Amino acid sequence: MEDLKKWIKSYPDFPSKGILFRDISPLLAEPKALSLLKDRFIETIKPLNADYVAGIDARGFLFCTLVAENLGQGALMIRKPNKLPGELIEKSYELEYGSNSLTVQKKDLEGKSIVIVDDLLATGGSMQCSKELLESLGANVVAGAVVIELKSLKGSSALNMPIISLISYED
Amino acid sequence: MEDLKKWIKSYPDFPSKGILFRDISPLLAEPKALSLLKDRFIETIKPLNADYVAGIDARGFLFCTLVAENLGQGALMIRKPNKLPGELIEKSYELEYGSNSLTVQKKDLEGKSIVIVDDLLATGGSMQCSKELLESLGANVVAGAVVIELKSLKGSSALNMPIISLISYED
Repeated sequence: MEDLKKWIKSYPDFPSKGILFRDISPLLAEPKALSLLKDRFIETIKPLNADYVAGIDARGFLFCTLVAENLGQGALMIRKPNKLPGELIEKSYELEYGSNSLTVQKKDLEGKSIVIVDDLLATGGSMQCSKELLESLGANVVAGAVVIELKSLKGSSALNMPIISLISYED
Repeated sequence: MEDLKKWIKSYPDFPSKGILFRDISPLLAEPKALSLLKDRFIETIKPLNADYVAGIDARGFLFCTLVAENLGQGALMIRKPNKLPGELIEKSYELEYGSNSLTVQKKDLEGKSIVIVDDLLATGGSMQCSKELLESLGANVVAGAVVIELKSLKGSSALNMPIISLISYED
């Protein structure tokens, strides 16, 4: 699964000192890499037979419609505050400094199974928050699927859900 | 082209008084609507033979990878400030109150043709800004493609580029 890694570019000290940023831009820009990425997501997510693929704002949006459309499923947006209209549920999660919030529109998801997609799994805060938001609407979150997993941050073991990652880094 | 419209939900006074917000959430969530949306984008964008499909942060991301992957093209991200690593070009554009900025990574796009996608075209400020950013890297922006066009705001006539819209509202 690791040949996608050659299209990831690493930037030290972005967005802040001490952070090694893993950038998916080169992967998206190369047609054969984008196509391979889609195939990998499809082959791992298809067996889960989900009803919806939910993407986390903003880079999760790059993958939720791509996967959902290919599998004949619906796509859902999990958004930052003040972006979605209508009746919402909002939930916050802790960051190293401060906290962030995510929102979803109220919608009956009773008995629906959902895969949450994002570009990257670090500590898992936004993935866990997204899972709780969807579960509060009755959904069954069957997995999280990310392009990149940063193993050293142990997000995967902190989360009470299966995590599919296409590329991983140990440090 | 108008049958997609039935999956758009309208919210008066969001995000602020006097704005009628057109929400694509129901369209994304319905598999047959999402599939139809993709087909419509593909049939209108394919003849342009672009090299890349660029998405505007955040809802443009829902469509740039979907279209690019289906056409065997690459996807590019046009992002809000402080989101992209590496060497960037930044450009601001006017809003009714204040201004916003968008950024792209520096990349040689000389001779490359690009379609810019977004969910909605209003006054066209972010579309024009995105076009100028990509042109400053040498690209030829061949069209803008949006799910929804708000005709009364005349964004299309203010822009010096062809605009493809799948759904339009006169007011």
